[in-house]
Amino acid sequence: MKQFIKTDPWKLVETTFHPEYHANSESIFSIGNGKMGQRANFEEDYSGDSLRGNYVAGIYYPDKTRVGWWKNGYPEYFAKVLNAVNWIGLHIKINGELLDLNKCEILNFERVLDMQHSLLKRRFTARLANGNEVSVEAVRFYSLADDEIGALSYTVKAENFDGKVEIESYLDFNVVNQDSNYDQRFWEPISQEINGDYGQVKSVTKKTNFIVACGMHNSLFVNGDRTEAGKEVTEQNQLVSHKFSLQVSQGDTITLEKIISTVSTFYYEADQMDEACRKNVERGVAKGFDALKKEHALKWEENWTHYDIEIEGDVSAQQAIRFNIFQLNQTYTGKDDRLNIGPKGFTGEKYGGSTYWDTEAYCLPFYLSTAPQDVARNLLLYRYKHLGKAIENAGKLGFNSGAALYPMVTMNGEECHNEWEITFEEVHRNGAIAYAIFDYVRYTGDREYLIDYGLEVLIAISRFWAQRVHFSQVKQQYVIHGVTGPNEFENNVNNNWYTNFIAKWCLNYTSEIMEEVKTKAPQKYTALLGKLNLNETETLNSWAEIADKMHLPEDKERGIYLQQEGFLDKEIIPVADLDPKHLPIVQNWSWDRILRSCYIKQADVLQGLYFFEDQFSKETIKRNFDYYEPITVHESSLSPCVHCILASAIGNEEKAYEMFMRTARLDIDDFNNDTEDGCHITSMAGTWGAFVKGFGGMRVQNDQLSLAPFLPKSWKGYAFTIGFRGHWITVKVKPDAITIINKEGGPMQVTLHGKDLTIQEGENILAHALH
Amino acid sequence: MKQFIKTDPWKLVETTFHPEYHANSESIFSIGNGKMGQRANFEEDYSGDSLRGNYVAGIYYPDKTRVGWWKNGYPEYFAKVLNAVNWIGLHIKINGELLDLNKCEILNFERVLDMQHSLLKRRFTARLANGNEVSVEAVRFYSLADDEIGALSYTVKAENFDGKVEIESYLDFNVVNQDSNYDQRFWEPISQEINGDYGQVKSVTKKTNFIVACGMHNSLFVNGDRTEAGKEVTEQNQLVSHKFSLQVSQGDTITLEKIISTVSTFYYEADQMDEACRKNVERGVAKGFDALKKEHALKWEENWTHYDIEIEGDVSAQQAIRFNIFQLNQTYTGKDDRLNIGPKGFTGEKYGGSTYWDTEAYCLPFYLSTAPQDVARNLLLYRYKHLGKAIENAGKLGFNSGAALYPMVTMNGEECHNEWEITFEEVHRNGAIAYAIFDYVRYTGDREYLIDYGLEVLIAISRFWAQRVHFSQVKQQYVIHGVTGPNEFENNVNNNWYTNFIAKWCLNYTSEIMEEVKTKAPQKYTALLGKLNLNETETLNSWAEIADKMHLPEDKERGIYLQQEGFLDKEIIPVADLDPKHLPIVQNWSWDRILRSCYIKQADVLQGLYFFEDQFSKETIKRNFDYYEPITVHESSLSPCVHCILASAIGNEEKAYEMFMRTARLDIDDFNNDTEDGCHITSMAGTWGAFVKGFGGMRVQNDQLSLAPFLPKSWKGYAFTIGFRGHWITVKVKPDAITIINKEGGPMQVTLHGKDLTIQEGENILAHALH
Repeated sequence: MKQFIKTDPWKLVETTFHPEYHANSESIFSIGNGKMGQRANFEEDYSGDSLRGNYVAGIYYPDKTRVGWWKNGYPEYFAKVLNAVNWIGLHIKINGELLDLNKCEILNFERVLDMQHSLLKRRFTARLANGNEVSVEAVRFYSLADDEIGALSYTVKAENFDGKVEIESYLDFNVVNQDSNYDQRFWEPISQEINGDYGQVKSVTKKTNFIVACGMHNSLFVNGDRTEAGKEVTEQNQLVSHKFSLQVSQGDTITLEKIISTVSTFYYEADQMDEACRKNVERGVAKGFDALKKEHALKWEENWTHYDIEIEGDVSAQQAIRFNIFQLNQTYTGKDDRLNIGPKGFTGEKYGGSTYWDTEAYCLPFYLSTAPQDVARNLLLYRYKHLGKAIENAGKLGFNSGAALYPMVTMNGEECHNEWEITFEEVHRNGAIAYAIFDYVRYTGDREYLIDYGLEVLIAISRFWAQRVHFSQVKQQYVIHGVTGPNEFENNVNNNWYTNFIAKWCLNYTSEIMEEVKTKAPQKYTALLGKLNLNETETLNSWAEIADKMHLPEDKERGIYLQQEGFLDKEIIPVADLDPKHLPIVQNWSWDRILRSCYIKQADVLQGLYFFEDQFSKETIKRNFDYYEPITVHESSLSPCVHCILASAIGNEEKAYEMFMRTARLDIDDFNNDTEDGCHITSMAGTWGAFVKGFGGMRVQNDQLSLAPFLPKSWKGYAFTIGFRGHWITVKVKPDAITIINKEGGPMQVTLHGKDLTIQEGENILAHALH
Repeated sequence: MKQFIKTDPWKLVETTFHPEYHANSESIFSIGNGKMGQRANFEEDYSGDSLRGNYVAGIYYPDKTRVGWWKNGYPEYFAKVLNAVNWIGLHIKINGELLDLNKCEILNFERVLDMQHSLLKRRFTARLANGNEVSVEAVRFYSLADDEIGALSYTVKAENFDGKVEIESYLDFNVVNQDSNYDQRFWEPISQEINGDYGQVKSVTKKTNFIVACGMHNSLFVNGDRTEAGKEVTEQNQLVSHKFSLQVSQGDTITLEKIISTVSTFYYEADQMDEACRKNVERGVAKGFDALKKEHALKWEENWTHYDIEIEGDVSAQQAIRFNIFQLNQTYTGKDDRLNIGPKGFTGEKYGGSTYWDTEAYCLPFYLSTAPQDVARNLLLYRYKHLGKAIENAGKLGFNSGAALYPMVTMNGEECHNEWEITFEEVHRNGAIAYAIFDYVRYTGDREYLIDYGLEVLIAISRFWAQRVHFSQVKQQYVIHGVTGPNEFENNVNNNWYTNFIAKWCLNYTSEIMEEVKTKAPQKYTALLGKLNLNETETLNSWAEIADKMHLPEDKERGIYLQQEGFLDKEIIPVADLDPKHLPIVQNWSWDRILRSCYIKQADVLQGLYFFEDQFSKETIKRNFDYYEPITVHESSLSPCVHCILASAIGNEEKAYEMFMRTARLDIDDFNNDTEDGCHITSMAGTWGAFVKGFGGMRVQNDQLSLAPFLPKSWKGYAFTIGFRGHWITVKVKPDAITIINKEGGPMQVTLHGKDLTIQEGENILAHALH
């Protein structure tokens, strides 16, 4: 755990430079606008530890898979999020000496991430080896208002010297991925140009042939006055620059404003990119740096009104919840159904791929409640469009007749992960994709989606389950062997309760939706059955038989579901009784020891109880929570959020708070000692869920919002805003009152702590008793 | 399956060149002498498909491990059997054109492996593109009599032309391993020299610093007369050659005799290698090619008297059994307790490492019966010497107090395999190492071994088991979770019957041997307990408790042991009912499908019944065999042999014969479509066991040999020879009689088909009834 970030309700603040944590800061101070993003690298040269990273949405490289022992069915490649052109780069020379904070005496330093406006700011004063002291103020952003534009302003002040200052502002496409399996370069140069006004580099990815171009314009100001003095252009291979050499006097300030655009073949035809890129830069230059910054900041301010959460009495929690919401909105804006939410977003390379079951299980609820309905719908359409590839993927594993197995990790619908125990066996992901359809429809009421898209996906998934089970003669039930459940600290187990439960649910839900679509849209229904070559009666009978006889392991004596068959055979020792030096076990124990142990990485049985809460009594949830949570090590970033929600539901407020703080400050405090690789973006949606579904008790039941807020002991109050079917409501919770403000959409019915209420637009409901 | 090898009782014969099978032939025609060996590459240039391979015993490279997803505890490297200097190489030019069978018209071709004398012979006539026709006769060998020497003779006859013949005979150390993980070269050059009489190259392995030198002498004869005419020397980096240019007339024959020596720091100090190498070559040259060949061939002939098996009435079986015995004796001669039996011997690179549990479970019996006692003892000492590293290895996985886990794959005692389901979980290997001690002592009666070495290994292994179990509250028994049994088509299962049984046996056997050593050698016993810091009473009590309460899953209704807990939950479909297009499943099915299926790769429960046959009734063995064999796919080369032995024991002669032929001709007929990578050396010992323990019914019971031979229906007779405690006996089986000849060692007691007999030296026992 690291605690070098100052607390502030709207900002991350670092007031001393910690070179040892710089890579961490590069991750958490990252900025992006959904189309592009980058780590918080320094603009000027820095020779210390740093992971330079600039990323462009949708651009990936199918890096040849590296694996010691090939198993039949492994994918050929692992899709890598691609490090792309470095556009922030500046070389600063003071009287011939390169400014490099790794080689200077740093007299003061401040790095600030303004989360309200998505501005990355830095100021410092440094004394170079030659004795020259400079002060620097830098600010940069990726425009949310004009989303192919990025801009930075960099001001150097000569504090104690006269002499020569050189500023070289460059675009550099000579970049590599640190995680390249074979130390390959993934980009091939195409073209470059540079003149006094404009510079551009353009490269293409090997194999995938994505082209990315980046153009720049640089303006220089001395003491506020624009100058072209001493300007040169230089170029090398995929590296172009504008270089300014100036004689300055003590006290002079020099400001560079750099406006860039990055465009890619993800959005443009190859032959239109140069023009698009140049026009973007020209438009940016015409608006000017300050105007660009203003429209960008306003856009963020406006957006915050839809998803901000305010906490009174706990600045650390306030900072953390906003950080989570902020990073999510930098990563994914929901405009494009070909994009998804990568586990590291634009903050690092690790894990590759962009889409895990995290999207459906953890992220969807956030976008359902905080964004227009289309955003969540696009996340669903993403999977709909990949259905063909999911069917191919299942085919590779021996399934047929249109059965689909969605990939564990993907960029374009193809599986690109290669651990057999995950790739082939963590099949519960299919369940989450079906569940997301259910969750979306439950929240939005958009039942049309089922007719046009949802049912087709549900059928393919149910076909998979119907083939993945087999009938056990011994049990006289259907069983599912050889799976890895959500708890990846168990591999190749039989009858994982969560997997069997969600498979059963999928079969039943699909049958139910078939019935609904048959009634509502009989022609489309018949056409779909024809397209899918599906025998209705036979299929429904077979699914019903399997669902009815699905084996769901439980221990009646303890009143708990069994994570998998034979779980109670394990040696059960609570985490609290483990010598802490063993934690995290994933870093200290060999894999077999982890597998044999009872320790749980993330919610497994409890994930099922969270998803299907309505089907279980509070007592059942409590018994299972009390059994499993004490043996859960929460070594997945996705673990604490679900436990917070369930702990809240069963009234264990203390545990709920502990879990919330763990998920909320995971990256800021570097709980898992891995933030330098990038932030845990998808778990941030879980943090939001922990707050709104946990503390806020938000559910949707019978087409209606239900709330059951409580206030953590140490807080003075909080407020959150959510959208629901055309309404936007803000829920304010204080020790003595709950206030609900219905901001738009006319009167609405809400259930508050079990009581049905009608709220008129603008009306505030006050409930004096919190419980 | 391929059937291009002609049958012959003592030879492998290829009478047509099959370029498509050349890599196969390179494997099966391999030669070696225990210290070095090579694939049957052509001497002259060959531009077609070929895997060039020359190997030197004990020389390996710790290649950096390649793995997609690192697990805590994985080894840093995988030891590679190293391709070393190519000494057979000749460039032959006929009137300026390179002789290359890939570019000639081949008028006739014969390749012969003389297994009786370990001679690789080849003759062919080829028409070059320039119309010149040459006949070639080549023969080569690694001397068994003078075991650092290799030699070849290569004769070229000008069939239809006059003109220029050039022969360049070289040593080339510019070699790579095809299986290098990062395409690295593993050798660094040290020195080279060349003069008219002698050439030498010398390189050192990176990291391990093994030095290997190879020296050569070349003599040329024209029509039988030695000549030095037209001789040049050439050299490049680690490549030296003698080049002869001659004018010949039609009908002339030119013969090159090349005598080489390979020496390494495995046997010499670095500063003595040059001299040793040169002296070896000088000695070889002094003896001359013919004399070298003769003493080598005689040595092989002599050795065959100890292990030959003769079969009447089935040349295919005769050829196959000799091939298996021949390859084993080329690979391992048992002189050096630092060496072991690599899975591919000197016939290929694949798998790396040199030692698997194959040695103890499959190879030891062969050497016990066919070689002096020291050979088997050296195989045991090899593991004794690695005990410290096995304790370290267990330590890495969290075991303590002197518990040992022997590596799955090793070269020097360190684990070098990296699949968690194998490396960490296939722990039954520990049992085989204990079993080998038992097996060795049972066969030899050498109980001193237990006092000086065996007990220490047994204690360390038992300490491992005592920590690897845990007590199941549910079962009120000890259980072993998370293992892979011998059947590697199941991973991470609980309570594999074989593993639990052998663990229990280890604990009991170790306790028993402690008692014996305590009585026989009380001082050594006390010293050992002190060295091992072992509390006798506490340990023995704990081991007894665990052994008594070990869970051994069984199905009482069917009267079978369960391969693992829950096995009967699987869908059981006999292999015979599978569409053959699915076979081999390892090449056609994804890993999860294999794991879920009931199909067994190699004997698992049956391996236990084979090892501990005495503890089970014939009916129990039969019930288990009849249950498990039909669902066994035998996709491990180690599978058929054990099934042959058990089938024989339960009187299923037809199945025994089927299994024997499958194991015996595995490589010759390329059953598994992988012989081009090298031969399955360790399974060859299983073939021998299938014959002698299967057909011959050989066992050791109560310090006495027991035999129960039967004759496969289609054979007319067979004979095998085995050594036992100073005796050598030959057992001859004919349809109407069994003859036992006691060749040396005085009178001996033998059990024949259950009857105790005393056989005087030289006496023949005739038993008219076979059964």
